[in-house]
Amino acid sequence: MERPVDVDPAWMKRVEDVASRLESSPVELAYRLVRASDTKLINMASGNPDPEIVPVKELSEIAMEVLSALGYEALVYPDAGGLEELRKEIRLYMAREGVSIPRDYDIVVTSGAQHAFRLLSEVLGSGRGDVHVICESPTFVETLAPLKLRSEVHGIPFESGRLDLDAMEDTLRALGPGRALIYLIPTCHNPMGVTMDEEDRRRVLELASEYEALVIEDEPYRAFSDSQPPALVTMDEERRVIYVSTLSKVLAPGLRIGWVAAPAEVAGVLTKLENYDITTSTLTQHVALEAFRSGLVDSMASELRDHYRNKRRVLEESLSGHMPPSVAWEPGGCGLFKLITARGFDAEQQLAEAIRRGVIYVPARKFFVPEGEEGSMRLSLGPPTPDEIAEGVRVLSELISERAGA
Amino acid sequence: MERPVDVDPAWMKRVEDVASRLESSPVELAYRLVRASDTKLINMASGNPDPEIVPVKELSEIAMEVLSALGYEALVYPDAGGLEELRKEIRLYMAREGVSIPRDYDIVVTSGAQHAFRLLSEVLGSGRGDVHVICESPTFVETLAPLKLRSEVHGIPFESGRLDLDAMEDTLRALGPGRALIYLIPTCHNPMGVTMDEEDRRRVLELASEYEALVIEDEPYRAFSDSQPPALVTMDEERRVIYVSTLSKVLAPGLRIGWVAAPAEVAGVLTKLENYDITTSTLTQHVALEAFRSGLVDSMASELRDHYRNKRRVLEESLSGHMPPSVAWEPGGCGLFKLITARGFDAEQQLAEAIRRGVIYVPARKFFVPEGEEGSMRLSLGPPTPDEIAEGVRVLSELISERAGA
Repeated sequence: MERPVDVDPAWMKRVEDVASRLESSPVELAYRLVRASDTKLINMASGNPDPEIVPVKELSEIAMEVLSALGYEALVYPDAGGLEELRKEIRLYMAREGVSIPRDYDIVVTSGAQHAFRLLSEVLGSGRGDVHVICESPTFVETLAPLKLRSEVHGIPFESGRLDLDAMEDTLRALGPGRALIYLIPTCHNPMGVTMDEEDRRRVLELASEYEALVIEDEPYRAFSDSQPPALVTMDEERRVIYVSTLSKVLAPGLRIGWVAAPAEVAGVLTKLENYDITTSTLTQHVALEAFRSGLVDSMASELRDHYRNKRRVLEESLSGHMPPSVAWEPGGCGLFKLITARGFDAEQQLAEAIRRGVIYVPARKFFVPEGEEGSMRLSLGPPTPDEIAEGVRVLSELISERAGA
Repeated sequence: MERPVDVDPAWMKRVEDVASRLESSPVELAYRLVRASDTKLINMASGNPDPEIVPVKELSEIAMEVLSALGYEALVYPDAGGLEELRKEIRLYMAREGVSIPRDYDIVVTSGAQHAFRLLSEVLGSGRGDVHVICESPTFVETLAPLKLRSEVHGIPFESGRLDLDAMEDTLRALGPGRALIYLIPTCHNPMGVTMDEEDRRRVLELASEYEALVIEDEPYRAFSDSQPPALVTMDEERRVIYVSTLSKVLAPGLRIGWVAAPAEVAGVLTKLENYDITTSTLTQHVALEAFRSGLVDSMASELRDHYRNKRRVLEESLSGHMPPSVAWEPGGCGLFKLITARGFDAEQQLAEAIRRGVIYVPARKFFVPEGEEGSMRLSLGPPTPDEIAEGVRVLSELISERAGA
């Protein structure tokens, strides 16, 4: 009997129906292009932290210690919700970083922040169509993706680097009370790099209260700057804020350790749902626990501030020095990314040429809700060295000058 | 302002609505009870492999090697779908274990098998209510849980340890063509311990073909016996079988490394969906890769056969020697589990007393679809030593004799 070429059509139709609702990520695409490249690229696309400061040796020693001290216990099935001791250490670490998690909140350990958004979308977004997500536009396209699967999404634009909260209020009013889930990256925004000031944070909480909204505060970059306004979760007096963070930027993304801090009732349901996938490695949880206990996380958090501040200064100077007047960006900022927008340039179409010239970025049109300008690009401060940042910007500025309006 | 006690009621209602559809797992409950116990229990509940044979030292050496050879690369974000080289090694390993994955199938690495079922339930189970899951009754309650979230479930009973395929045909006929997803653990069944023979496997495939069904073959225990019938995925000529396996039982569950082998079109969608959670640790993927390459997985797979065969013999002899006539079980079998059923005994109610006497098992009523006999218990061969197995069975037999009909 000849093997048929196709999967049963009734089933393939269902699979394609699911596939049609899934979006490819421009970030994932850029990762694939980096791997497929024959030559080493100046990687301004990746969200991976700087290889210079990822503490490989220390993590290797910790992994050894964990396995020799705990043995089998480090290799058994994980508990839903995460290791009790790790949850305690996360709470203490957050406090040291200035984020006071309310006592009636619980921490749920997840396999990275992305996993947290997937669980949250299922617990909060599935209100049979009546939940709408309000987000910054641009926002991080990958964290938004799972929230989008279950809810309609409304983007709120920035004006000169500041989120337009009047527009947010209009959207909240139009939706009516109790229906909006506000997803924000208020500190060192991805891809913008900007931080929401305390006054705007207070207004977000007032709006959430007035329109009975919940807020998901996504904060992977708090450690990247030492002068942050208080976290929304700390300012909140009505248990409206659910807080998500991760070790991916401070320690290493390959461990897949993130967390949610949520009111205990919500955290309980997230934990129950986590038992449906059981994805968080026991071994990497113990490595994370020991990285907290040994002080490694704290020392990394203080080291990375200067490190990325310096790289950002180089990026800023290079942009100012090279980019043609058709290119705009918000100056300063913090975190791992900066968004630049080149008028008359098609960043998706020109990506292949940029790669031929040795530089890769993430075209950022899909970071906007609805989709934004073709000329927007996300530049990363993670993998490239300061020299590579300067060179990368020079190459891009040439490309933009040549191809803008082409 | 006083902090309110409750989360916003409109939101809490949504959260509770989700919570009401989630089931607590009796397996997870047993894990919690083990941890909460003041004394060391004879653990006949846990699905963790035997601490005696988990290769802690070898895994520790491999982790060191991986981190010193790859450094940063072992700690970056993982690729959706898993490391290319790991997927190749999995295919080769499966072939060495006698499972030939068709060439037009792709492997997708997942964070353990449970994660695979979660992804599969989303890709195959969400046909707007028209997909029905057919499973063995009993089946493994935790893998069934995500499939159940999206589909109605129909249990097919066993008769003297053999799945009633006439009943399966009746169910398929009643559902009509193209609507049934058949979930099976054909080899060393959890919790039954039985293996489906080749003739029955052929009939399952014929039924799947006739009724245009797909089959999910869950096979974590193939390595536990060296005389297995061919895997369904190998016998299948119509691309109807999706195969799921894991390193959890052969190597260590704490790594969270499992996989799906599926027709390339389906694997592509699973990979796309995996980019929505990004849960599989890069570090543990590299550890798994090196465990394959170094021969550790193969040597474990051959070691564990004798090891568990011996423990199963002890269990069998203890059951025959101690249990009152009200207790029934299928003799022999393979894998990590055995189901016993005590007439007139309430296994859930008596669990606390069993724990007081130093033994824990998993009450198995919820493994049945619909829920089954109160007296059913799943006994594990993983954590307990042969002596503990003998002692555990003795304690349970006393308890059952005292409390049956109480």
